[in-house]
Amino acid sequence: MGIPIVWTASELRSIVAVWHGDGLKVAVVPTMGALHEGHLSLVRAALARADWVIVTLFVNPKQFNSAADLIAYPRTEYDDAAKLAPLGAHILYAPDAADVYPQGFATTVSVGAVSEGLCGAFRPGHFDGVATVVTKLFLQTGADQAFFGEKDFSMRRLVRDLDIPIKIVACPTVREDDGLAMSSRNARLSGAERRAAPRLAQILFETARRLNCEVCIDRVLDEARQAILAAGFSEVEYIELRAPEDLGTIATPNKPARLLVAAWLGQTRLIDNVEVWSPQSSLRGYIPAAADAA
Amino acid sequence: MGIPIVWTASELRSIVAVWHGDGLKVAVVPTMGALHEGHLSLVRAALARADWVIVTLFVNPKQFNSAADLIAYPRTEYDDAAKLAPLGAHILYAPDAADVYPQGFATTVSVGAVSEGLCGAFRPGHFDGVATVVTKLFLQTGADQAFFGEKDFSMRRLVRDLDIPIKIVACPTVREDDGLAMSSRNARLSGAERRAAPRLAQILFETARRLNCEVCIDRVLDEARQAILAAGFSEVEYIELRAPEDLGTIATPNKPARLLVAAWLGQTRLIDNVEVWSPQSSLRGYIPAAADAA
Repeated sequence: MGIPIVWTASELRSIVAVWHGDGLKVAVVPTMGALHEGHLSLVRAALARADWVIVTLFVNPKQFNSAADLIAYPRTEYDDAAKLAPLGAHILYAPDAADVYPQGFATTVSVGAVSEGLCGAFRPGHFDGVATVVTKLFLQTGADQAFFGEKDFSMRRLVRDLDIPIKIVACPTVREDDGLAMSSRNARLSGAERRAAPRLAQILFETARRLNCEVCIDRVLDEARQAILAAGFSEVEYIELRAPEDLGTIATPNKPARLLVAAWLGQTRLIDNVEVWSPQSSLRGYIPAAADAA
Repeated sequence: MGIPIVWTASELRSIVAVWHGDGLKVAVVPTMGALHEGHLSLVRAALARADWVIVTLFVNPKQFNSAADLIAYPRTEYDDAAKLAPLGAHILYAPDAADVYPQGFATTVSVGAVSEGLCGAFRPGHFDGVATVVTKLFLQTGADQAFFGEKDFSMRRLVRDLDIPIKIVACPTVREDDGLAMSSRNARLSGAERRAAPRLAQILFETARRLNCEVCIDRVLDEARQAILAAGFSEVEYIELRAPEDLGTIATPNKPARLLVAAWLGQTRLIDNVEVWSPQSSLRGYIPAAADAA
């Protein structure tokens, strides 16, 4: 038995109207389903801070560049509703694509700095697709708070810029014991790839630590790139420093920033990121074993 | 004495929260100030259908293509607050540009079909600027209804696509006795230009009437273009048929459509539009004098 699944925006709105009528706080956790421990930690954080928690499950066609990738993406409503039951989340909202994008749909939301460069260069339209659907999910749910992993940066910029009345709560990335950031994509890795994958996080944390000490940014990033390729990855899409709030390019180092990486391991694209130059660096969050990091 | 002016989004939000807490309906009438009878008719329509009416006054830098045009645009908060007092509107919301577009602002809302062609081709970014600021004003005010003139079509598409919880109420264009659509731009016309200006509406209505009877659309539109130039206008930016809901191009005639025109008279750009092919055509709304229409 899982938690109740709501399939339409109109049904969801009438439920949330009752909750808000009682003066209660509503949180939303947006997902594409295939829930793993990373998602569940967001749900727990939401349950600790709000009265009602909606988990959304929408595999957004607008953020896939390949139709094959979209079709291959798992649909997991009932499994996910079952996973959410022991936590006590209240509703799984799983709208249909035809309901989210009605006939004649013509509107796009873009967050400039995020769309330029980074994934934007490699996945045209991807960030616009994310920003558009997230705007819609925020406004459909009418939630007071939204819980995201640290990798979803542009959300604060988006809600501030459009005055969406929702508070973004960013939660730390949840990692496997070996440091690999949790992702539904990890399931696609072969045995050998899964063993190589943690090197990405290890190199990322190592690079952040070097950047906290050294001045020659370009050299440190270039060596990180070489190390990722040497670890068996076939391509590094980017390893870049960006402003933490809106992922804009940074003019001067030593202000808090994010170090972001995207790299391909076989047929799987892995992403990760870490804070640098911050007084409260999240480097404490993961210490790679000395042997692995060598 | 005018109605109260609210200058910040946070103050406005706290007022609207009280209204909504009482279960009352809130309407918004977005304007760029310099209120004329056209705006006031929207305010009256809003007062007839909502409990509280907010008029917004924001001269949006993002929808001006020329800095000189922006600087020359009148700022009229206190005059407008005084004009609204006898009607009984409740609040004039006049935010500062720095409050609307905070540092690092990076988000754009685009409504596809509207941005392509029409004004879009002549005023790059204009429609995106309108869609972005209207989204913000809807979400800042939290209003339940928004009142617009018939010329602002894309609003229904925008709120449907982004699930903004607001109902768009479109009101008929208000015209001078000679047919000229009311606009704050009309004040810029010289005496001779003001006498020539009504020909635009007259030709537009005449063209709509011909389109309701004749099949050769291209010829009718071409003759309308020639007639506008012959009436003393220096340039016709466009005279085009578009779908009424989202201003998309239309594949087949005889479904309800809008005929839209933009033309320059001296230094002033005038726009107007009229319904065609509708069972309840708004042609009844204005009958030009036979002598003028000849």
